[in-house]
Amino acid sequence: MLSKSQIKLITSLRQKKFRLQHQLFFAEGVKTINELLHSKFKLHQLYTTTSDFNVSDVLQTKITPNELKKISALKTPNTALALFEIPIEENIDLNTLVVALDNVRDPGNLGTIIRLCDWFGVKDLICNTETVDCYNPKVVQATMGSITRVNVVYKDLTEILKETNTTSFGAFMDGENIYDEELPKNGILVLGNEANGIQTNVEAFIKKRISIPRFGNLQQTESLNVANATAILLSEFKRRR
Amino acid sequence: MLSKSQIKLITSLRQKKFRLQHQLFFAEGVKTINELLHSKFKLHQLYTTTSDFNVSDVLQTKITPNELKKISALKTPNTALALFEIPIEENIDLNTLVVALDNVRDPGNLGTIIRLCDWFGVKDLICNTETVDCYNPKVVQATMGSITRVNVVYKDLTEILKETNTTSFGAFMDGENIYDEELPKNGILVLGNEANGIQTNVEAFIKKRISIPRFGNLQQTESLNVANATAILLSEFKRRR
Repeated sequence: MLSKSQIKLITSLRQKKFRLQHQLFFAEGVKTINELLHSKFKLHQLYTTTSDFNVSDVLQTKITPNELKKISALKTPNTALALFEIPIEENIDLNTLVVALDNVRDPGNLGTIIRLCDWFGVKDLICNTETVDCYNPKVVQATMGSITRVNVVYKDLTEILKETNTTSFGAFMDGENIYDEELPKNGILVLGNEANGIQTNVEAFIKKRISIPRFGNLQQTESLNVANATAILLSEFKRRR
Repeated sequence: MLSKSQIKLITSLRQKKFRLQHQLFFAEGVKTINELLHSKFKLHQLYTTTSDFNVSDVLQTKITPNELKKISALKTPNTALALFEIPIEENIDLNTLVVALDNVRDPGNLGTIIRLCDWFGVKDLICNTETVDCYNPKVVQATMGSITRVNVVYKDLTEILKETNTTSFGAFMDGENIYDEELPKNGILVLGNEANGIQTNVEAFIKKRISIPRFGNLQQTESLNVANATAILLSEFKRRR
C-alpha cells in the first residue's frame, strides 16, 4: 500500500532538484534493480508487485500494478521500482583512460556512453556540471545496469584540464584523423554537446584535436551522434594496433 | 486550412499498413524536409506554418500551429510536416560493403544505423522483412536526412546470403576478435535483434562470425547496443590498417 506522501516523494525524484534535496534516485525493472542491489549502491526502499527480491521486509513494500503505474516513469511499467541513495563520487584516476563530457544533454546519450565506458573498461566518467544528471531516470534506464560499474563525477572540466599533465583529446569535426594517431594508454577523451560540440573555454585546454573521418558524401555537414562517436573513439583507444 | 480527411490520412501514416496502402510517408522539421526536397524523394504535399519553402503553391498548404499539432507525431512540433511518396527500392550492389539487419526493432536504432551508413559511405542497407519500417516517422526523424542517401531495401536475408559469393560477416557475442581480422573492401555485415541477436536460420548462411571484445568487467553479459556495435564495426571495415 502506497501513501500519498510516498507517491509524491517518488514522482518528485524525476526532477534533479528533488533528487539533490533527498539524495535519492529511482531505478525500474528487475534486472537493473538487481544489479544495483549487488553493487555499492544502498537501497532506500523497494516497491514491487511480485516478491522476487532477496531484500529484508523492512525495505520492501508490496504494491499493486495500479500503484506502480502511478509512480513509474515508464510507458509500460515493469514489476518493480526501487529508491537508492545517491552515492558519494569517488576520486578519479587520471593515470588511465578517462572520458569527459561537455554539455551532453540527451539522457539516452549519457546512458549509452556510461554503458560504453563499462564495456571498454573506462572506470571514470567526468561530466561538466551542465551535462544531464546521471541519476535522471531515463539515464539510469539507458545504462542497463552499467551505472553500478562506472564512477560518474560532476566537475568543472576546465579546472581539471588546466591542472593535469595527462594528454587531453577532444573530438572535433576538423581534428586530426583518429586512425593516424598514436594513442596512449592514459588520456582524457573529451566529447561535446550534441548540437554545438565542445565549448571554446574547454577547447582552450585540449592538447590534441581528433576527428573520425567521413567516408560518405562529403558535402553533408551532419555530424555523428555523440554516443556513436564515443563508441568508435573508445574502440580506437583500446584496440590492438 | 486542413480538412478532416487530410488529418485522418496524415495521422494514419504513423502506421505501416496505411503507409503501404497510400505509398506515402511523412517527415517533420525544416532541415529534414529540405534534404528530402533536394533528393530523389517526390513531394506529395507540404504543410507549413511559415512559408520558407521553395515549392510550388499547389504542393504547399499554409496551416496554423494548432493544426500542425493535430498532425505532428512530435511532442514539440516544428514548423512543417511534409508527405512524400515512398520510392521504389533500388538494386543493391554486393561488390561493395553492405549492411544487413536481422529483426532490428527499435526505430531509433534503425535511424541511427542509416545515419552511420551515410557517414561511412555504405550505399545499401538490407533489412529482413521483420525489421522496423524505415518510413516509420521515428526512423525518418532519427536519420537526420540520411535516409535520402542510403538505399534501404526489405528482403528475405537468408535468400540473399544463400545466393551470393560475397563474404558475409555476422556480429556475435562469441565471434572472432574483429581487431585481428583481415577485412575485405566488400562484404555483407549482418547485425541482429537488440535482445536476441542474429536468428539461427540466418546464422546458417553467415561465413565469418565476428565480435567486438569487451575490455571491462568480464562477468557481465550485457551486450553493446546494436547501433554502437554497427558504428565500431563500420569503423573497422573502413579505417586504414
